[in-house]
Amino acid sequence: MAVSNIRYGAGVTKEVGMDLQNMGAKNVCLMTDKNLSQLPPVQVVMNSLVKNGINFKVYDNVRVEPTDTSFMEAIEFAKKGAFDAYVAVGGGSTIDTCKAANLYSSSPRSEFLDYVNAPIGKGKPVSVPLKPLIAVPTTSGTGSETTGVAIFDYEQLKVKTGIASRAIKPTLGLIDPLHTLHMPDRVVANSGFDVLCHALESYTALPYHLRSPCPSNPISRPAYQGSNPISDIWAVHALQIVAKYLKRYVTQQGIETEQKKCDPPSCKMCLVLECPEWDCPLEAWSVDIEECHWKGQEGCHGMSYPISGLVKTYKAKDYNVDHPLVPHGLSVVLTSPAVFTFTAEMFPERHLETAKILGADIRTARTQDAGLVLADTLRKFLFELNVDDGLAALGYSTADIPALVRGTLPQERVTKLAPRPQSEEDLSALFEASMKLY
Amino acid sequence: MAVSNIRYGAGVTKEVGMDLQNMGAKNVCLMTDKNLSQLPPVQVVMNSLVKNGINFKVYDNVRVEPTDTSFMEAIEFAKKGAFDAYVAVGGGSTIDTCKAANLYSSSPRSEFLDYVNAPIGKGKPVSVPLKPLIAVPTTSGTGSETTGVAIFDYEQLKVKTGIASRAIKPTLGLIDPLHTLHMPDRVVANSGFDVLCHALESYTALPYHLRSPCPSNPISRPAYQGSNPISDIWAVHALQIVAKYLKRYVTQQGIETEQKKCDPPSCKMCLVLECPEWDCPLEAWSVDIEECHWKGQEGCHGMSYPISGLVKTYKAKDYNVDHPLVPHGLSVVLTSPAVFTFTAEMFPERHLETAKILGADIRTARTQDAGLVLADTLRKFLFELNVDDGLAALGYSTADIPALVRGTLPQERVTKLAPRPQSEEDLSALFEASMKLY
Ligand SMILES: NC(=O)c1ccc[n+]([C@@H]2O[C@H](COP(=O)([O-])OP(=O)(O)OC[C@H]3O[C@@H](n4cnc5c(N)ncnc54)[C@H](O)[C@@H]3O)[C@@H](O)[C@H]2O)c1
Ligand SMILES: NC(=O)c1ccc[n+]([C@@H]2O[C@H](COP(=O)([O-])OP(=O)(O)OC[C@H]3O[C@@H](n4cnc5c(N)ncnc54)[C@H](O)[C@@H]3O)[C@@H](O)[C@H]2O)c1
Ligand SMILES: [Fe+2]
Ligand SMILES: [Fe+2]
Repeated sequence: MAVSNIRYGAGVTKEVGMDLQNMGAKNVCLMTDKNLSQLPPVQVVMNSLVKNGINFKVYDNVRVEPTDTSFMEAIEFAKKGAFDAYVAVGGGSTIDTCKAANLYSSSPRSEFLDYVNAPIGKGKPVSVPLKPLIAVPTTSGTGSETTGVAIFDYEQLKVKTGIASRAIKPTLGLIDPLHTLHMPDRVVANSGFDVLCHALESYTALPYHLRSPCPSNPISRPAYQGSNPISDIWAVHALQIVAKYLKRYVTQQGIETEQKKCDPPSCKMCLVLECPEWDCPLEAWSVDIEECHWKGQEGCHGMSYPISGLVKTYKAKDYNVDHPLVPHGLSVVLTSPAVFTFTAEMFPERHLETAKILGADIRTARTQDAGLVLADTLRKFLFELNVDDGLAALGYSTADIPALVRGTLPQERVTKLAPRPQSEEDLSALFEASMKLY
Repeated sequence: MAVSNIRYGAGVTKEVGMDLQNMGAKNVCLMTDKNLSQLPPVQVVMNSLVKNGINFKVYDNVRVEPTDTSFMEAIEFAKKGAFDAYVAVGGGSTIDTCKAANLYSSSPRSEFLDYVNAPIGKGKPVSVPLKPLIAVPTTSGTGSETTGVAIFDYEQLKVKTGIASRAIKPTLGLIDPLHTLHMPDRVVANSGFDVLCHALESYTALPYHLRSPCPSNPISRPAYQGSNPISDIWAVHALQIVAKYLKRYVTQQGIETEQKKCDPPSCKMCLVLECPEWDCPLEAWSVDIEECHWKGQEGCHGMSYPISGLVKTYKAKDYNVDHPLVPHGLSVVLTSPAVFTFTAEMFPERHLETAKILGADIRTARTQDAGLVLADTLRKFLFELNVDDGLAALGYSTADIPALVRGTLPQERVTKLAPRPQSEEDLSALFEASMKLY
């Protein structure tokens, strides 16, 4: 069989020990966070490692929304352990931390800033070989198991930045829908909002063929390249999934899969871990996925970095952490009504189309109202999902706007694909309009 | 920029010289076939190589629908040339030949059968490093620029087989829609039929979670793994494209792209190569695509191999070759009405859904007629596209059926995912039913 980088199926996590054995791993680092270390996703992995006779050490000190300090602590652990493979069990925070630990322990003489994106870091290319990393995502928003990106808060400057290199992409992602059963409400909602905003930003981004100037050499094409026929397919599909399932999930707690049911159906529990029929992991499928999904980002993501970076005292419900925290998904979604009202004039039909997918009746909508229609649809959606009432509910006020704007400006990589360029005044107005939603 | 394995855009081929320069190539092999060597796609590539000062040699002896003999001739050329990079400009025949040339010239001591799929060859894994290969597809059906597969007729046994290894996957694919402007009618139609059948077979294949038995180790999962949520998305999208554009193309000759028009629109030729405004290649986008598209295959492909392998005298129109030839797309599509009539009882809703996408009115269709409805839709489609009237038109008769059946049986890899298993009698009946279509 060809090596594939993603395997999907209820129960695939049980196979992780065999995968490590296939890779020849003998001394494995299992990374996770304090909450997950008590939960079934980590237990399933540990059982599989034990069953397959694989030695491992656990690092469960991942910080939810990691920082340079928390990255460095994980790197130290990795350096001491001299591991020959990594397994990251958790959300984007855990997978990203594990990528950094793998990178810097494989390149022990590098300074931390060497590989961090410019202008904050030096953005050096990675030329050292890394160890295999198996990512077992437990949330359903970041897609970090498929990306060569590791994101963290750079505490000194209070900005989010990251490391971007294909070298840190996980060797294998095991996507097991059962893990999502354990996610608390707000984690489901916020990771879903990350998907929602990526899809909206991607679908309404500047199309690839309108970017200018043409680079003089193909090697200098940007990674964020604008909307295109393939990212459009994924964006629309992701919006349809969010529209159909996210609200249902948050309100009813349950997953819906196409998994094989117990046959004969012996218990109502056939879709949860405890089902006695589940000794053999269900059949899985695998694909090779790269970061082809989101090829454009704009306002919401650019503005989100200072919103989470400048957090004062807000502690997100359900995240069970001891530090102030605005989760990534929340920080992107709160500005979405304002942002899409602003951007709609460039590609109003696409804005209307997304509103329709999210449930709006657009039969009588006028093109010039596309932004308002989408914004209203988003506000209704957020209200029904019990989202905090805007930036004010997170502790921000008008006095914070200059700092929020300053924090957005360095994110040029992200915001320059916005269909409509944003001046400082525009950004101020967008933050102001996002203070209250309802 | 991250290295991406596919770049799409009208005009991207003009950049191939720069791409080779970026790769450090100094002595390049340009492979193509005799028809294409006279046409703009090859000329554009040559101009770009010259402009960027890259030394190259041309091999234009690729056989349309390659054989082991034609592969070996290309391999000899590659061995002698000691090239440090390859560019393949053509359809699946050219790209596949180039993959083989790259592989065996990088592994000069291997016997030809070493890397050929078992049971015909030894199916050895590839461990030697290959040279970079840039694929410039000129047809729009095979997707060979994204796969680690090279297909050929093994003349001795009159069967199609291939080489399958991730190692032979092209380093980069440059997808330039302009090249398709030069395709003759039947090449457009037949490469479109390949897409059509892959999409239908994939969408109606056994779902991944109904495959059995579960493999005991994830490493032994099959490459053809059944339908799944991701391949479903691509299959439906491909069907929509075929339904919307294929007939139009064949009848009207023209491409429809979302490319930037000349601004101000100075000529009606802005979408063809000769447009004077096209000095700067238009902006492009790139993705990393793997063979995630088609994860199930069934009847049509399994039965196609003997249909093309046992060809007697039929010479496909528009292919301009001096040997008998049943093009791959034609060999798969002719059995499609019979095959989908046969398979429909397993997943009738999916069969009806595809009929609808292809233009059928299914509002009053009954589930038990799903197969007939899809078959009628396909027949109408093929008739409108001037497709030969069944296997009889290719020179086959009832007397050939035993040989055709024998030629299908070794294709177990492919046919075992058919939603309904096929006995020898079933196969005979399917070939018989495909003798005449209209
Ligand atoms: N690398 C990338 O490509 C990429 C992309 C997008 C976002 N990110 C980053 O990912 C981080 C966010 O990750 P996230 O949203 O996946 O969440 P997370 O990893 O930050 O976890 C959020 C909370 O949910 C808990 N949790 C996670 N899964 C659980 C489960 N199944 N059951 C119970 N509790 C569970 C965690 O313990 C934590 O308290 C941010 O730092 C963001 O910037 C990275
Ligand atoms: N490797 C894979 O993954 C894969 C997948 C599917 C099929 N295939 C193989 O690919 C082969 C078929 O390839 P194909 O359908 O792309 O066609 P092809 O390469 O066989 O070419 C068909 C004919 O069209 C001509 N032609 C191609 N492009 C042209 C253009 N732009 N303008 C004018 N003439 C043009 C060629 O000269 C030739 O005469 C088969 O051998 C099939 O088995 C391979
Ligand atoms: Fe995000
Ligand atoms: Fe095919």
